[in-house]
This record gives sequence, structure tokens and C-alpha cells, in this order.
Amino acid sequence: MSWKERSVAKRKEVAEKIPPAWRVDPDILIELHSTADHATDLIALNAVRKVSILSSRELDITENYTAVELVGRLARGELSAVDVTVAFSKRAAVAQQLTSCLTEVFFDRALQRAHYLDDFLRREKRPVGPLHGLPISIKDSYDIQGIQSTLGYVSFLDHPPATRNAAVVELLLKLGAVLYVKTNIPQAMMVADSDNNIFGRTLNPHRTNYTAGGSSGGEGALIALRGALIGVGTDIAGSVRIPALCCGVYGFKPSTGRIPYRGVVSHNLPGHPGIQGCAGPITTCLEDAELFITAVIGAEPWLVDATAHAVPWRSLQIFPKALRIGVLAEDPSWPLHARVKSALAQAVRQLAAAGHTLVPLSHDDAYGPGTGQRIALDFFSIDPLDTSLQYIAASGEPAIRSLRVLGLDTPKTAVQREACTIGRLAKLNVERSHYNDVWNDLVTDLELDVIIAPGAQNTAVPHDDFGLFPYTVMWNVLDYPAGVIPFSRIATVDLEQSESRSPACDSGELPHYSAFLLPWLPCALQVIAPRLQDERWLAAAKAIDAVLNRMR
Amino acid sequence: MSWKERSVAKRKEVAEKIPPAWRVDPDILIELHSTADHATDLIALNAVRKVSILSSRELDITENYTAVELVGRLARGELSAVDVTVAFSKRAAVAQQLTSCLTEVFFDRALQRAHYLDDFLRREKRPVGPLHGLPISIKDSYDIQGIQSTLGYVSFLDHPPATRNAAVVELLLKLGAVLYVKTNIPQAMMVADSDNNIFGRTLNPHRTNYTAGGSSGGEGALIALRGALIGVGTDIAGSVRIPALCCGVYGFKPSTGRIPYRGVVSHNLPGHPGIQGCAGPITTCLEDAELFITAVIGAEPWLVDATAHAVPWRSLQIFPKALRIGVLAEDPSWPLHARVKSALAQAVRQLAAAGHTLVPLSHDDAYGPGTGQRIALDFFSIDPLDTSLQYIAASGEPAIRSLRVLGLDTPKTAVQREACTIGRLAKLNVERSHYNDVWNDLVTDLELDVIIAPGAQNTAVPHDDFGLFPYTVMWNVLDYPAGVIPFSRIATVDLEQSESRSPACDSGELPHYSAFLLPWLPCALQVIAPRLQDERWLAAAKAIDAVLNRMR
Repeated sequence: MSWKERSVAKRKEVAEKIPPAWRVDPDILIELHSTADHATDLIALNAVRKVSILSSRELDITENYTAVELVGRLARGELSAVDVTVAFSKRAAVAQQLTSCLTEVFFDRALQRAHYLDDFLRREKRPVGPLHGLPISIKDSYDIQGIQSTLGYVSFLDHPPATRNAAVVELLLKLGAVLYVKTNIPQAMMVADSDNNIFGRTLNPHRTNYTAGGSSGGEGALIALRGALIGVGTDIAGSVRIPALCCGVYGFKPSTGRIPYRGVVSHNLPGHPGIQGCAGPITTCLEDAELFITAVIGAEPWLVDATAHAVPWRSLQIFPKALRIGVLAEDPSWPLHARVKSALAQAVRQLAAAGHTLVPLSHDDAYGPGTGQRIALDFFSIDPLDTSLQYIAASGEPAIRSLRVLGLDTPKTAVQREACTIGRLAKLNVERSHYNDVWNDLVTDLELDVIIAPGAQNTAVPHDDFGLFPYTVMWNVLDYPAGVIPFSRIATVDLEQSESRSPACDSGELPHYSAFLLPWLPCALQVIAPRLQDERWLAAAKAIDAVLNRMR
Repeated sequence: MSWKERSVAKRKEVAEKIPPAWRVDPDILIELHSTADHATDLIALNAVRKVSILSSRELDITENYTAVELVGRLARGELSAVDVTVAFSKRAAVAQQLTSCLTEVFFDRALQRAHYLDDFLRREKRPVGPLHGLPISIKDSYDIQGIQSTLGYVSFLDHPPATRNAAVVELLLKLGAVLYVKTNIPQAMMVADSDNNIFGRTLNPHRTNYTAGGSSGGEGALIALRGALIGVGTDIAGSVRIPALCCGVYGFKPSTGRIPYRGVVSHNLPGHPGIQGCAGPITTCLEDAELFITAVIGAEPWLVDATAHAVPWRSLQIFPKALRIGVLAEDPSWPLHARVKSALAQAVRQLAAAGHTLVPLSHDDAYGPGTGQRIALDFFSIDPLDTSLQYIAASGEPAIRSLRVLGLDTPKTAVQREACTIGRLAKLNVERSHYNDVWNDLVTDLELDVIIAPGAQNTAVPHDDFGLFPYTVMWNVLDYPAGVIPFSRIATVDLEQSESRSPACDSGELPHYSAFLLPWLPCALQVIAPRLQDERWLAAAKAIDAVLNRMR
């Protein structure tokens, strides 16, 4: 079989797992996607309701509660795990048909588990755990026993189903969650477009000809359409935060070691040194991110995963009401688009008005985003074997477009391979450690509680236009907990006409610059805390979210 | 100047910093060292008293209190910082003349600081911090502003004095400690004999023709002679624990990241990947180790050191009185000497009799000490440049004998250099991570609170005979907190005659085996807890110490 035939067969196999009653009428699909430039806003159009798959009760279950509220109702028996599981399964199936946000679906297994959970509650008069009956979606790279982890590589279709659960999967089940879908990712993982030759391209629900972000882009689209309320992504350069900011939801990358990472299949050289990926939640509100983190850490992940830190979650009892908030400066080499700049300025004004102290940081290459990104890219490319490209080449499939436009599909030359030495790696370790020292001194000297920054130069952009990721990856280099808060369309009212009308200063580099770019797409604010201060991150993010999204 | 002239000049410069009144009568020194084979037991001989340098009040201050008791008396003004500093300075000066345990001495500076502290207490009616007035010794590799960090490399005599304090130095000063001496180490750090061409060889106070251990061997000898009550070492393969077990004192290697490590001068390629060193205390009792750890972590080291974890010390409120203790099995490839085996067996019996549950672990290469050591040695030798050997070669000085007997003085061949690739490093990372997984599963499945093990195959041995370090380095590979409890001469009463009289089974490998080897040298028990569970380590070590050393 050619790579194409294999990928068509796999896609068909997945599609057939969606029960016929949950399949969207092709005419409605065509109508939805027949807008100019295929630029459909599935959210504004209320597409999930339009396809008439979910009952009104199912719409109620999936639309009117947070995950925190749902687990409360499930634990009290006011909702059954079966009803909640069916509702979210149907909604995820619809989201998949609208945006290609899923890879594997296993609704049957989920329903079986939901029955088990309902029986347990009836019999034992108590829930299995704090996530009892809650459907949670998970990125394709997490191993789930009996299910394939292909990462979108056609060559990985040869791999047998996983024989063991990833650590976080194991814990989520122990905590009572229901797993029902795995979500889409980019081929080779390292770009912001969740597109591959097996499962296709994930579309942004806010505008279908725009990127949903990546690499956890399937999660971004699924959560934005409320096909799940909590999704689990991974982030080594922005892979949780970029989909969140593109899709207008919340995404949190904790410090490495807080959420277990064992059993995440690598797209790269196993044992690749340098920056480590980590697991993090994508949600529709911070309370649900908190539910996920506190439940998982409360389950003592270090017992099942040697890489998880034996550090219990500490509720912050005393936290200053008035925060000292550092404001990251724009890196002139990575200019912010006008709307992003304007949203950041507005956030600063609102936070100051609410009584917080804003401390503007000046730009300095010693701690700037560009430097962090340079260090990260050097680490990412230290593998002389280009293992990830070999995984692509093994099946004969082509590289996806967003890899090609960044030149990431080209194997190293002999000279470049020879430069991948232990000496170079050691030098990178020193540079990283210096970058960490400079940031640590800055935070200590200025007595900052947290830092705010843009999540990217841009909002969502047309497919394959996202480019690199200086404003997210710098925090992976530092291993600082960082997350994005959607800070949505309000920003546009504030956009000064003069600025928005200035000529586009597009340098030809990605992301292409346009002051007029789609003012109705979500904006986001990134909030960052020092390394391992995930508790402080959450407390501060809640305070900031209250100012930006609730006090209006 | 030749390397020899330079090293003589440096040694003379240090010797002259010892005030004339504190210099030991050469005749007494000769008499002390004139025993057969130069095998003097300085402790049994009461050598510190014999040299008649300390007044009876100074002997009282240095001999009759723990550090915990001393800081209490200092804080209440019952002792002055000046008196305590002079007493320990004199005792350290004597220890230096008896065992060559020091590198740099700065008694003047210490005295000035003690005056400042006394003034502060008088004026402010409160101590500067929890270590107010306590002299603390520190290994040569920690930078102290204004003082050289030569690490015993003659070529490092070119280096200017440090311009900045190491993070732990900064914190100790903030906490009120007095720094007065730096302690001796091996050339190139990676052996258990603290011997170098500048400062000479540190002798074991229990038997001067035996090793004091290494690399923090100066600390081991100094603490055993009570020239300090708390010393700060570093440990990447056993460098805190080996001197402690050789010298009959307590040595604790925490998890990396708990005690700050910034400003420790590397003997190796800067940025060398793999196993990281960490700081740890050497003390005469566990309470003093606790004082050091809780004071340093209480000072929020993460504010001054980006590598320190922002994880406060958690006092363990509830800890099982009856521990489940795993007992590491002997690795047949690294056989235990009869006395070590016998001491371990006795510890097991005493702990069981005290009501703890002992869980014998079977030997398995998958998690055995030999495997851990193999992984460690592979990491340690991944530098194709042999940077440490270059530091030796730069001055023309020869390699010390203990490097030569282990073959560690030979630069890599071209073939070996070419094998130091990123691919090999990545494979090692995978092996390490597998080793961690296997251990983590073992600890979880058997529900172990802690593990006990020998600290080495042997007790202290003749100079340059120590060999490798499987029983300590495996815990560095795992990054498990591990420390040794002296479990001293009592073990001998239990040594079965049959075993002790069995023919020596010396394989020719180091350490040379003899069943009859010096029954009066200290034995030790190693206690180990899972990664980042330093709090659990301390609580369990105290419980075990109470059984072995106090309930007799």
C-alpha cells in the first residue's frame, strides 16, 4: 500500500467509529463551509447547534457548566456519567466533522466506563475520585492502552496499539475521568499548524481558513467548541499556549515535573538532551485548569512516574492582593502586531486601575525572547540524525507545508551534522543557565510576583503563516510556568485608529504583518511565574483574569 | 616558576596565615606521626588536646555542644561569636597541621565578622539569623569573594580571587554564619582520595595512613576532629558520603535543587551534560544537618540561584513510626567486605527488633549498583576534550596516584573521542530514565518509606586503594536523597568468627579485600529516600539513628 492508501484507510477507520446518528448531514457541512475563502466562524454561526445532532439536554450539559460544576453534579448523582459521556462524545464527534480536531475516537470504551462509574456511585454511595464521570480529551502523543499513538506519522501506522497507559492517563482514570478521544497534532510536532498526512488539518473554529495553533491544535479547536471542558496537551515551545491563544481558550504550561510525562511518545530522538516537554491543560476557564492540576498532583504522580516531582500542591493562603507585575518588553526583532500590542496596553491599564503595580521591563538581548528562542532552536536541532525527518521519510509521505515554509523539512548537511557535538551542547547548557540566572536576578531584584507578556506576535493567522514562537518558547527555556488568558475582542475597541491605519510593516518574515488583520479573532495575555511556582501562577492568573474578563 | 615552586609558594602562603601561637610544636607532630606505618589514630590519642593549643574553655566550646546547642547559646548571648570563632579557628588550624584538611584559611576575616555579629546582637537584641555566630567550613570549590578557588589544580593558581560569593555562601552569611576555612579535595575531584599537588593529601584522623575519603575529604577529617560542626561539601558520585563513612561522621546528599549550587567551580567541562552535583552537609549529628538544611531552604535559595527549586521545607507532621525499609542487596560484582556486610546485618536486626519492617530486595542488574555506576561513568566520560585532564596538564604537574591507579589520568584515544556523540548521550539519557523507572516502580510496588544500603564495599582503606563507588553513585544517577549514619565499632562484636577468618577473596581490584581489615575503623549505614523526598529522608534517618546509636 502507498502511504496515501494507508492514511486514507486509517482515516476511514476512525470516521467509521462515529455512530451514523452522530454524522453531520453533508449538505449542512457544505453550507457551513461555503463562505467566502472558506472563512467560516463556527462559533458565531453556532455550528454545533445548527447540525442538530445534540439533544437540548446534551446542549445544556455541554454548554452551561464548568468542569468544576459538572463533577459536583456527577458526584451528587444529579447527572449520570453515561449522560455526560454521551453528550460530550456527540459534541466531540461534531467538532471533529467541523474542524478535524481528533485522531483516535473510542466512544464505546468511554460508554462502558461511564456505566461502570454510575454503578460504582450507586453501589458505594461515593464517587471514584474528584474527576468522577468527567470526559477529558487528550493529545495523540499520550499512550492509552489498546490505542495507537501515531503522532500523525504514516510510518507509525506500523506501530501496535500501546500496551500501557501514560502516567497521566493512569492517574486520570484513577481519579474517575472518562477518556473518549485523542486529539490532532502537526506532523513532526514542531510547528503551530496541526496538520498531518493521516488525520488532516485542524481548522480554527473562529475562522476555518486560519490555524488552530499547534502542536496541541486539536485540543484548542475541541475545547473552543466545548467538545471537552478539559483537554491535556504538551508544551515544549508553546504547544499548549499557542492553540489556546489561537482558539480563545485558556492554556497552562506548568513547570516540568509537576504533571507526569511518562508515556508521552516522542516525535524525536529518544533521550534528546536539553529542553524538556511538559503536560498542561487547555480549558474554558481557570477553575477547570485548577481542578485538573490539583486533582492530578493530589494523586501523587511521583508514585507512578519517576520524572514527576514529589512536591505536593500548596494552596497559597497569603498572597498579596496588589501584585507586582513585570511587563515584558517587545523584542524589536520580533515585532508585535498592532492588535496584540494594543491588547497588552489595555491589559496594563486595566490591571493598574485595579490597584496592581505594573513594572515595565526594558528590552535587553540578555533576557529577550529572541535570545530564548535562539537557545531553544539550537537545542531542538542538536540531533545529528534528524530523527523526526526520518520518521517522515520512512513512509514516503511528504513534509507538511508549515514545515516546508520554515525550512524545517531539510535534513542537515554533513557540516551541520558534524557541528552537533557534546562541546556545542555543553556550551548551550551554559548559555541556558546564564539566561536563567539573568531572569532570576531580574525577578528577585524587582521583587516581581509574576510577569505578563503577549503569547505571540500575532493572533491566529492563515494556515501555515504562524512562523516561530519567541514569546512562548523563552519560558520553556527558563522552565517557568506560563499560561494564556483569552483577553478577547474587547481589545479592538481600544485600537487607536492612527495605529491601525499605519502601513503594514511586513518584513516578509512569518507571521505576515497586517494592522487590519481580523479584529474579531481572540487576543490573549500570557501570565508567567518563576520556575516551580505554579501555585503562585494560578493565584496570580485568577486575580488577573478577574480584572480582564469579569470586572467589566 | 615550575609547577612545584608555585605550589610550594601557595602552601607556604596558607601556612603563614596560621598565627604563630596556633602552630603545633614540631616535636609533638613528629611524635604523633611516629607510630608504626604512620598509622596514627589521632582521635583515640586525643591529639587535639595533646598539642596544647586550645584553652580549656575553647576545648569545651568545640567538644561539648552540637551546632544546634551552640546557636542557641550564641543567640541568647551566653557565648560570644568572637569566642566561638576563635575556638573553632584554632581547632581547625590544629586539624590542618595534623591532617592537611584545609586549602584556604581566613581567620582574620572571620574574626572581624564575629565582632560585627556580637555588636549586632548587643545593639539589636536579636541574632542576625538562625546560624548567628556559628563557624561553618566549606569545600574549596565554593566561590567566596576575595578568595581563590583553585580546586587543587596548579594551573588554577593563575585565577584571580573570586569576585562573587557562591549562592550558598551568600545565604550562610545572611543567616549569620561565620566562614573561616575552605577544605581540601582531590585533584580532578573524581576520586575518593583528597590529594593534590598544591595542598597535599588529607589524612584520616582515625588512622593517618588511610584515606579520609573524597572528594570532600577535607571536610570529613575536619568534622571528625571537630574543627567545625557543620561543613558544606558537594556530591556527584559520593563526595559527601564517602568522606563521612571513612571518617565516622554524618554526611547527607540531598536531591539536586534543594541546596543552591550556583558558584561552585567546575573541575570539568562547563555545561557538562548528565548527572549534576549537589551541595550537602557533613556533621557530627543529624540535628546539625537538619539545622543547616532547614536554615538554608528557609532562606529561599531560589531567589538567589536559578537552579534551586522553589520548594519550601515541609516538616513531616505525620510519619509512620514503623517504617517499611527496603534493604539493598549486595551486587555480586561489587562484593562487600566482611565487616561492612556484618554491620549491615546487625543494623537490619536492630531495626527489626525496634519494630520496623525490613524488606530485603533481591539483586537484579536492572536496578543494581553496578548498573548505576556504569551509567554514571559513561556520563562522566562523555567530554571528548578531557577538560579536567587539560587543567592538570596546563601546569605540567603530574596526575595524583589515585587517578593513575584507576587509569583516569589517560586522555581519550581518537576512537574514544569520536564515540562521545549526541547519539551516545541520548542513549545514556534513555538508560538513566529506565533505571529511574525501575527504581520508582520498585519503591511504589513495595510501598517502601526508605532504603538502607552500605555506603561502600569497604570502610576507610589505605591511601589510593578506595577504587570506584557503586553504592553511592547509583543514588546520584537516581537523584535520590542519600546520607550515611556512622554505625561504628559496635559492628565488630557481631562479626562472626567463621566469616572473619575466611580466606581473603581479593580479586585484585580495588578496594583490596581483607576480612581482617581494621575492625576499629568506623562503619556506616546509608539511608536513601525517593527523589525530592528529603523531608522523608531526614525523618527516617533520625528514626534509624535512634535505633542504631542511641537505644543501645
